[in-house]
Amino acid sequence: MNDDKVPCDRVGAARLSLRRVAIDTYRENVAYLHRDCDVYRAEGFQALSKVEIRANGRRILATLNVTNDQRIVKCNEIGLSEDAFAHMGVEPGHPATISQAEPPESIAALHRKIDGERLSRDDFHGIVRDIAEHRYSKIELSAFVVATNRGELDREEVFYLTEAMIASGRRVNWNERLVVDKHCIGGIPGNRTSMLVVPIVAAHGLVCPKTSSRAITSPAGTADTMEVLANVELPFDRLSEIVSEHRACLAWGGTANLSPADDVLISVERPLSLDSPGQMVASILSKKMAAGSTHLVLDIPIGPTAKVRSMPEAQKLRRLFEYVAKRLDLSLDVVITDGRQPIGNGIGPVLEARDVMQVLENHPHAPMDLRQKALRLAGRLLECDPDIRGGDGYAIARDILDSGRALEKMLAIIKAQGSKGFNHLNPALGALTFEVLAPAEGVVTGINNLQIARVARLAGAPKVQAAGVDLACKLGDPVHKGDLLYKVHAEFQSDLEFARQAAEKSNGYTVGPASELSHVFVEF
Amino acid sequence: MNDDKVPCDRVGAARLSLRRVAIDTYRENVAYLHRDCDVYRAEGFQALSKVEIRANGRRILATLNVTNDQRIVKCNEIGLSEDAFAHMGVEPGHPATISQAEPPESIAALHRKIDGERLSRDDFHGIVRDIAEHRYSKIELSAFVVATNRGELDREEVFYLTEAMIASGRRVNWNERLVVDKHCIGGIPGNRTSMLVVPIVAAHGLVCPKTSSRAITSPAGTADTMEVLANVELPFDRLSEIVSEHRACLAWGGTANLSPADDVLISVERPLSLDSPGQMVASILSKKMAAGSTHLVLDIPIGPTAKVRSMPEAQKLRRLFEYVAKRLDLSLDVVITDGRQPIGNGIGPVLEARDVMQVLENHPHAPMDLRQKALRLAGRLLECDPDIRGGDGYAIARDILDSGRALEKMLAIIKAQGSKGFNHLNPALGALTFEVLAPAEGVVTGINNLQIARVARLAGAPKVQAAGVDLACKLGDPVHKGDLLYKVHAEFQSDLEFARQAAEKSNGYTVGPASELSHVFVEF
Repeated sequence: MNDDKVPCDRVGAARLSLRRVAIDTYRENVAYLHRDCDVYRAEGFQALSKVEIRANGRRILATLNVTNDQRIVKCNEIGLSEDAFAHMGVEPGHPATISQAEPPESIAALHRKIDGERLSRDDFHGIVRDIAEHRYSKIELSAFVVATNRGELDREEVFYLTEAMIASGRRVNWNERLVVDKHCIGGIPGNRTSMLVVPIVAAHGLVCPKTSSRAITSPAGTADTMEVLANVELPFDRLSEIVSEHRACLAWGGTANLSPADDVLISVERPLSLDSPGQMVASILSKKMAAGSTHLVLDIPIGPTAKVRSMPEAQKLRRLFEYVAKRLDLSLDVVITDGRQPIGNGIGPVLEARDVMQVLENHPHAPMDLRQKALRLAGRLLECDPDIRGGDGYAIARDILDSGRALEKMLAIIKAQGSKGFNHLNPALGALTFEVLAPAEGVVTGINNLQIARVARLAGAPKVQAAGVDLACKLGDPVHKGDLLYKVHAEFQSDLEFARQAAEKSNGYTVGPASELSHVFVEF
Repeated sequence: MNDDKVPCDRVGAARLSLRRVAIDTYRENVAYLHRDCDVYRAEGFQALSKVEIRANGRRILATLNVTNDQRIVKCNEIGLSEDAFAHMGVEPGHPATISQAEPPESIAALHRKIDGERLSRDDFHGIVRDIAEHRYSKIELSAFVVATNRGELDREEVFYLTEAMIASGRRVNWNERLVVDKHCIGGIPGNRTSMLVVPIVAAHGLVCPKTSSRAITSPAGTADTMEVLANVELPFDRLSEIVSEHRACLAWGGTANLSPADDVLISVERPLSLDSPGQMVASILSKKMAAGSTHLVLDIPIGPTAKVRSMPEAQKLRRLFEYVAKRLDLSLDVVITDGRQPIGNGIGPVLEARDVMQVLENHPHAPMDLRQKALRLAGRLLECDPDIRGGDGYAIARDILDSGRALEKMLAIIKAQGSKGFNHLNPALGALTFEVLAPAEGVVTGINNLQIARVARLAGAPKVQAAGVDLACKLGDPVHKGDLLYKVHAEFQSDLEFARQAAEKSNGYTVGPASELSHVFVEF
């Protein structure tokens, strides 16, 4: 390499200026330097080096990418990917320095875990703090996730991890004796019970400040569906006011800085498709504890295309949840449910919002499975109230729903958060459609959650709110050849074609003799 | 998100055009799409999604980064990072398609390894093939490296891994009964014995086609140092000609596609600082087998700042090397050497080239430790010749060196590869210098390999060939207060300052009473 012909003016390290590079690297901080940047050459950086960038009294670690393109960064600039730039909290052009990063302090503990050692409480706190502060690269995060995978963490280590994740962010205190919440481990399309359970238990008077995520790999999360009805991105102070007035909210949890290490870990667990019991327990319970919950009802669906595929597996997972919850002093009630098929009829934000509102209105077309499941979960949650006798919750929940008090509460929450004026009686669905029909006479013997979710996503959900899948038949329904199984809605032609190709490859339905209908025995 | 206001013209998937994005992502394929690209929105991609890009009958997998900046990619373009673009072998603007990538076939085997299972020969072949074809993301590579770390691979699995890595690339056949090579596991600055061993054994008549790497984390690799003397980037056909004529070469191995999976794995092992025995054995032996070697002398230095820190550790590593070599039918001779300090005086390409040439010329200032070590290794390698009796190698090597035949061979190799006209009697060293002096009277009792290497790198090596560290004292040398310990050479003021700051923090030398001099017992 000929270092005489550096085409940029040579500048000192201190004079580099920060630049926002509009590249979304999904929660990994990436810094961009020009190959001819004086500092780059001098420090002997390599692409993928970990560097530390300081500006405005803050510092972050980032992975270094090197470029020859002055349109991305000039020789006197440090470029930062979107998230990383936002972390620094400064304007473009702010002076900044860059240096070879010292490895995060907790790397020694990570190496001990990689070598198979059991880690201490302090080790987990150190690792999780570094993760929450974005001091781990994607490669190190991946190493942590693999080294703490199935079987590598004993239950006490899972507790330490959970505790450390709670401590990594904000912890809300509602100043209430009882703060209830419900959560599902996920994987079942259309499963919008939270939007029914929350108004039911709040109408009874329990405090239920529900914060939810948006969809990561599914066609809609609770936050995406609620967003059809109301504003879900609210500052925390406003949420507090709504909760004091209405006992509940249904908002997006992304702005609250609850268990931020969890969000970082998910960024590698998802592409690796790793969802080990220890990590799932730490993820869910840390979020709930950070949100200030005292009582939690947890839904574990089982089925051939659910996250948990057998009852022994569900029972084992339940015991781990219960052990950690007990150590955290969280009152936990685990409900194992039927996860053989989607819940409700609609899959996609608008379609799911329609189903929820129909149930709240006791509409004759309201999906009964969604209503039943919501009532059972709400009943279990109501029984957290010491004034309600065990076994009475379901009937109380049903009364609240049938009487219209749940609808009234929901409308109050929607109004408080800011209504979007959704017309659920005539929802605007994606105008481009195709239908999937029964290929033969028989009974619906299987519905593949994963394939239905995929078709709905390809159709545009959740980004295109009005896109998705509307199911006409559920398990056990008799069909004739040519009967409608489901209708796909999209707004864009290319989306429709992607969804059609996927549905033609596999539509997710199995139609056969009634004897082949799979049964699942779940407890309530 | 309002999808009505897409500011780009909507285009079909098939019409996207390829663009080279001048970002070096260090062996990870990265694809860039504009956030408003029709295909991006339609497919429901997420940042970090794995995508498959097809063009020109080729396909690659890449990690997706999403950008808002039309200067990086336009809405109708797919940007590819430098390596990824080169893989496609097309001109900018070539039409291409992008789709959600199916996971690599071998991911199921990776998951089994993560779960602690022993993998089969076929599993390793599948994984390594996918790695060599760049079908693994950085996250998946990291998962593989951690899941096959220390203790996770038994020795037969290490053999399978090595065999699969050999099969992942080109395998050279020299059509010779005996093809000898030497290799050091690394970590000792200045350790340029290859540039002496190769001309010695080639002068004797053995075939020794040496391909080396450039420095990754060290101040100079053999290829960097040889490049001071001669051209090292030669097409393989030219290398073959040189080897037929001169029995040897000293070239960079990067263009030969030998064990390409190894290069990909190193891209995550390095930032993780993972260098487990199994991975080291597979890496080294796969490269040597792919290069067509039949006989290998392997140097394992031990010392407090070497890669291997104790004799039991070295012995264990040796047994693993020997087991795998035997399964591969490679004749292996392991030599455990003194790794307590740098070898030779100079550290950095020009300084190391000077030392090598001084030894070849039997110059009075030639560093004796470099000469001795090279003679011992060359002697062991000469004993691969069935006509040489065990124990006679050293004396023969010394005769070849002392007689000038090694120098003559080296000059012939330099001329064949293309001489750079290096003047080793008066080498042009970096003109900016500072000196590190002894703080007190005593004996040099320790030299930290890692710190000396760091100072040399900060001074500019290996990119700035004339930069580096020139040692004036070695272990056991008596010094008075103010005596020169070493001199640092740089070409740029900022480099000099970085090196000075590091040396002021810790200069890497310990001076104390002679009784504190550490001893190491190594076998030869």
